[in-house]
Amino acid sequence: MLENILELLRTRRYMEIRSLLEESNIVDVADLFDQLDDEYTVVIFRLLPKGMAADVFSYMETDTQKHIVESITDRELSGIIDELFLDDAVDFIEEMPANVVKRVLANTGKEKRTLINRFLKYEEDTAGSLMTIEFVGLKKEMTVRDAFDTIRRTGPDKETIYTLYVMDENRKLEGIVSAKDLLLAHIDEKVEDIMDSNVIYVSTDEDREEIANLFQKYDFLSLPVVDRERRLVGIITIDDAVEALQQENTEDFELMAAMTPSEAPYLKTGVFAHAKRRVLWLVLLMLSSIFAGSILTKFQDSFAVMPILVSFMPMLMNTGGNCGSQASTLIIRGLSLGEIQGRDALRVWWREIRIAVLCGIVLSLVSLLRIYFFYDHNFALGLVVAISLLATVIIAKSVGCLLPIGAKKLGLDPAIMASPIITTIVDICALALYFTVAKMILHI
Amino acid sequence: MLENILELLRTRRYMEIRSLLEESNIVDVADLFDQLDDEYTVVIFRLLPKGMAADVFSYMETDTQKHIVESITDRELSGIIDELFLDDAVDFIEEMPANVVKRVLANTGKEKRTLINRFLKYEEDTAGSLMTIEFVGLKKEMTVRDAFDTIRRTGPDKETIYTLYVMDENRKLEGIVSAKDLLLAHIDEKVEDIMDSNVIYVSTDEDREEIANLFQKYDFLSLPVVDRERRLVGIITIDDAVEALQQENTEDFELMAAMTPSEAPYLKTGVFAHAKRRVLWLVLLMLSSIFAGSILTKFQDSFAVMPILVSFMPMLMNTGGNCGSQASTLIIRGLSLGEIQGRDALRVWWREIRIAVLCGIVLSLVSLLRIYFFYDHNFALGLVVAISLLATVIIAKSVGCLLPIGAKKLGLDPAIMASPIITTIVDICALALYFTVAKMILHI
Repeated sequence: MLENILELLRTRRYMEIRSLLEESNIVDVADLFDQLDDEYTVVIFRLLPKGMAADVFSYMETDTQKHIVESITDRELSGIIDELFLDDAVDFIEEMPANVVKRVLANTGKEKRTLINRFLKYEEDTAGSLMTIEFVGLKKEMTVRDAFDTIRRTGPDKETIYTLYVMDENRKLEGIVSAKDLLLAHIDEKVEDIMDSNVIYVSTDEDREEIANLFQKYDFLSLPVVDRERRLVGIITIDDAVEALQQENTEDFELMAAMTPSEAPYLKTGVFAHAKRRVLWLVLLMLSSIFAGSILTKFQDSFAVMPILVSFMPMLMNTGGNCGSQASTLIIRGLSLGEIQGRDALRVWWREIRIAVLCGIVLSLVSLLRIYFFYDHNFALGLVVAISLLATVIIAKSVGCLLPIGAKKLGLDPAIMASPIITTIVDICALALYFTVAKMILHI
Repeated sequence: MLENILELLRTRRYMEIRSLLEESNIVDVADLFDQLDDEYTVVIFRLLPKGMAADVFSYMETDTQKHIVESITDRELSGIIDELFLDDAVDFIEEMPANVVKRVLANTGKEKRTLINRFLKYEEDTAGSLMTIEFVGLKKEMTVRDAFDTIRRTGPDKETIYTLYVMDENRKLEGIVSAKDLLLAHIDEKVEDIMDSNVIYVSTDEDREEIANLFQKYDFLSLPVVDRERRLVGIITIDDAVEALQQENTEDFELMAAMTPSEAPYLKTGVFAHAKRRVLWLVLLMLSSIFAGSILTKFQDSFAVMPILVSFMPMLMNTGGNCGSQASTLIIRGLSLGEIQGRDALRVWWREIRIAVLCGIVLSLVSLLRIYFFYDHNFALGLVVAISLLATVIIAKSVGCLLPIGAKKLGLDPAIMASPIITTIVDICALALYFTVAKMILHI
């Protein structure tokens, strides 16, 4: 589409650009703006049909949004903010620098400004920060016919009309009814008789991971958010829940690789910002490796006598690290999907110990045979490695499964107890064990 | 709910059980069955209102489904299969043992059986295996009134009525129209005039990761699946796309920790099955650590002269592993979200090299200072460690970013090129480098 638009622009066929944009998917149009050179952005933005501009704007990247806002008039800006769904307006404002925010708010109607300011206060990653207020409210005394009238009247500005919310005069949530139920009901039926009053809802401070899990479990298209008096304050729609789900996954991936999480895409993040997210963890983990090093200092005499011992260290350390990382990954994932709870700790541990014994025996046997045949039938050396390996695997699996559950119990994100930290801990145990066993069996 | 039901069962208040079940969310009722002892399952299943049984059944765990199917009559079974959405029926059949499948198919109507057999052939993780056929089809000559009539007539059995599919007489997809557009349009308008003919669709062999990304990008509620002649063969609904998304994420987590992926929940998987998923990778990675070991054998003389060198090995190896794992995690995630493409390889590499230099300088300085002050002002030793560290970080970040992109280009899943493999490779480079630098600077 990009080349096409540029060609039309060069030949000044503006009306053709307009119809091309009009026919296209708004997400693709937003993508187009993200790729356009800044000089063309505003020209083309002004060609967008009025009803489309705000929608397209809400899908643009932050940089593009910023450039457009800085280039359009106050009146145009005010028009866009007016048309944006509240959650999109809040998301956009949160990303803008202070001077842009000031100008945006100055060009926002009083009522919406008050709402935006209230929504900006909800903590990140909570229901409050995910929800929007553009839902259709019904009363239970209404007939299906009344309900359709309400939908036709208020629907065009709503984010979804597929779940309708039934409230009393105090905005207390009494039930929900789906557009499907309305369409399949008789036109004179009362909303009260077809609504579902057994509603699942969340409070404004509910965590996004929990919300994502609810959507997944119940196959919701939207989820109501209520205050302490059970008054409906907003709804979360499935598209925002999916986005939250993916951000939660990305956060876990990044924490598990010892990085400070960030929501900015890789290629849009500067080199310094990347380094900053990583270096602190690297330094801390590096310093904690000193303990493993000091154990080696203690056993200097052993490998001075028998330097071959050193050559099995990488194998032992890596296997321990891999075993711990397998266990911790499964447990972290299970906790985040709600398949494993804190109370399962002992059950999980017992399971991991048995798994460790099975894996450990296989690994030890392979090592024993390898050393026996490749190192002059040195059975004693093989035995040292095999025993250390089995013990290391058991320790690694135990540490790997217990630390994430412990973190969860302490209210921390289990994902920080992943491979990097576990490897550091397992290294210390593995090396101490290895040289102790070696001293005992080989008499060095 | 469980205790409540058991109490009602004990006192034989069956009608109360029935109304309690009727009022509850079908997902919660399915959960209840999963927790019930087998002896009660069928009694309570028979109390479910007819319209609810198949829905509840589709949300149950495989074991519960199997138990119910084995305990009910052929007629009851036939009733449930009839009511199940095609995708749920296929999912259920795929999990059953051969004798159950045989009985299920024998009790399925001919038309549905043919469909099930066709759907069973679609490859796992493709659009074909995710889609269902319960959608509402319209013709473009219809008016909005006709469309609503069609929805009211056929809607009750459809998985979604919020996106309607407009097809010609050969079932070729011509456009889509949302229930929202229909509701907001005039009753005499033609479907043709309000439908969107710029439809995004996929073919039956499209991969589930790509599908999940489309849902996320365009905020779809459903996505049409077409054959080679662009005839509509099914639709994928958002709930199945979200499930596919989470399975894709879990698969990445598991591959990245060197495990064979599995879709069974942790606590539902036996100890042997767990061990089997892990041990092969552990053995392969352990054997590949032999290379790192053999490098150490080559430098035996060096650390026989200067055993202190050994004590910096864990620090060097772990830091290298962590750096590689940071880079590979970000790249694997970026590739899976579509934020990074194969063609970005050089751009990504150049970025990682600069990040590596920044992180490496900080890490090297910290080490240099620590060694200088804690090891008798041994500047030469500090320099050896600092130089090796800087080089290791650069190598680790390079390997970490290039291997996943390379895997993608070769058509492999980038997630296999994660921490475990990268650590093994980086170890070899780091150790060879370290002892070579040590020999040069310390003249040993």
